[in-house]
Amino acid sequence: MFILPKKVTIIEVGPRDGLQNEQNYVAEDDKLAFIQALQQAGVQEMELTSFVSPKWVPQMQDAASIVQKAERKGRQIVLAPNAKGAELALAAGASSIAVFVGVSNTFNKKNINRTTEESMDALAPVLAQLKSQGIFIRACISTAFYCPYEGKIDPQAVVALCQQFVAMGAAELSVADTIGMANPQESYTLFTMLKEKLPETLLTAHFHDTRKMALANIYAALQAGVDRFDSSAGGLGGCPFAPGATGNVATEDVVHMLDTLHIETGIDVLQVCQAISRIAPHVSRPIDSGMYRLFSNGQL
Amino acid sequence: MFILPKKVTIIEVGPRDGLQNEQNYVAEDDKLAFIQALQQAGVQEMELTSFVSPKWVPQMQDAASIVQKAERKGRQIVLAPNAKGAELALAAGASSIAVFVGVSNTFNKKNINRTTEESMDALAPVLAQLKSQGIFIRACISTAFYCPYEGKIDPQAVVALCQQFVAMGAAELSVADTIGMANPQESYTLFTMLKEKLPETLLTAHFHDTRKMALANIYAALQAGVDRFDSSAGGLGGCPFAPGATGNVATEDVVHMLDTLHIETGIDVLQVCQAISRIAPHVSRPIDSGMYRLFSNGQL
Repeated sequence: MFILPKKVTIIEVGPRDGLQNEQNYVAEDDKLAFIQALQQAGVQEMELTSFVSPKWVPQMQDAASIVQKAERKGRQIVLAPNAKGAELALAAGASSIAVFVGVSNTFNKKNINRTTEESMDALAPVLAQLKSQGIFIRACISTAFYCPYEGKIDPQAVVALCQQFVAMGAAELSVADTIGMANPQESYTLFTMLKEKLPETLLTAHFHDTRKMALANIYAALQAGVDRFDSSAGGLGGCPFAPGATGNVATEDVVHMLDTLHIETGIDVLQVCQAISRIAPHVSRPIDSGMYRLFSNGQL
Repeated sequence: MFILPKKVTIIEVGPRDGLQNEQNYVAEDDKLAFIQALQQAGVQEMELTSFVSPKWVPQMQDAASIVQKAERKGRQIVLAPNAKGAELALAAGASSIAVFVGVSNTFNKKNINRTTEESMDALAPVLAQLKSQGIFIRACISTAFYCPYEGKIDPQAVVALCQQFVAMGAAELSVADTIGMANPQESYTLFTMLKEKLPETLLTAHFHDTRKMALANIYAALQAGVDRFDSSAGGLGGCPFAPGATGNVATEDVVHMLDTLHIETGIDVLQVCQAISRIAPHVSRPIDSGMYRLFSNGQL
């Protein structure tokens, strides 16, 4: 039997990944109330918002204001897709910045019109500058298992990209099954390799529940020693550039499973559900996590 | 790393467990078409129907006719809750019969107004007779992990009940997380104990996806060497006597995970989804499995 970690850190991505992928703009005050409720539920690390073009992504038009108004509590991460975004994030006072690159060339080309190598070349000076200013850099690795265009991704390519990111100053790697196709053995294999090759770097697993394997993949990642997981309250979000990629794994389902395994997260499932019930009227997607259904039926 | 089984048998419970728990009676011809479509999808073992009182469970009023009309293919199981049901099942020509008992006394009392011991005493002569006639006996063990009234169930009590069933002639044990509360460690622990104590008996794991842990529990059971799983096409069914126990794990999600793990089932996910699409208009419950959603969106 594997020894599982005794404590796990949840990185809540709902306010960013979740609301960025909503059809409509959610009002700033509703976002701030959601963020605050999640903080009160015990969330210590959170993707708050994204410094993307308000022209293309109006959902995140209030990024600077969100950073300035959200209560400073734990690690608050903002997404910056490029140099311009990083500049705006710094100006708003962000101290932790996330950048994204897919392992798959085709995915990157379709997503940001650059190959993986071109993306890394463009990010190099940005990361160097952020690092020199003492900013915490979170590198998000998309399509780390499967790509909707290229199929199965070679784990060695994921390891190589992660090593490159660490050499460029990343303090955290968030390794994502962007289209929800990974199985538990693939989760175990990749995270075991990453733990071995990059033992000093914070390693986070990011799973989608598209094919209902997210908790199985998280369980396998726990067996590989992973103790950090991205998740989204209510399972909000997904990936607009990955066809069929509906649904981050829901924070309340992950925390509940960890609770039953006696793994500490510091997060209260009931309070997460209460936070979701505040944002639910403002989002178009039905909330269908296991724990939120029980909560809605008065069975929690 | 654990060695997982290379081949797994799926016991499809949709036509019985699924349709018995539907609000309305599904017409016999629709049931037969569903059964046939599941057989064509590759299902080799199936719970067809249940010989319960048509007064209390009108959904199964056509039990004898279903047994007689369904194409003989693989193992076809019918449920018999008591001596009367077993008699009717035999008269209809059934060759495999399932009986049910909960590990929890309170659950049995509320369910059939008998303690666990009284239930076993009542079943003893029934099983003796079935065995003498060469009938395959499947013993379904409810509340093997948690009981809605008693909470956590002692694994030793499950093992003891299973041993009693085997001594009474059961050829198969279907051990169920009736209310969907088990976690992967509990799954691994209980099934490892059962594999050790009863190595000669067919051991089947039955999980519900209430808290989204079903596939994680199945993965852990595979690690314990389990190679038989109950599941229900479309996730139909649950347990009418266990509050909150909505949803058997969906056959199409289980088979898909096993496919990706290169574990053979002989079942085709697409054809299972086609079978579900035939029955879906006749059931009240929305089908929300991962694979059926992809199928419905044309992404399978």
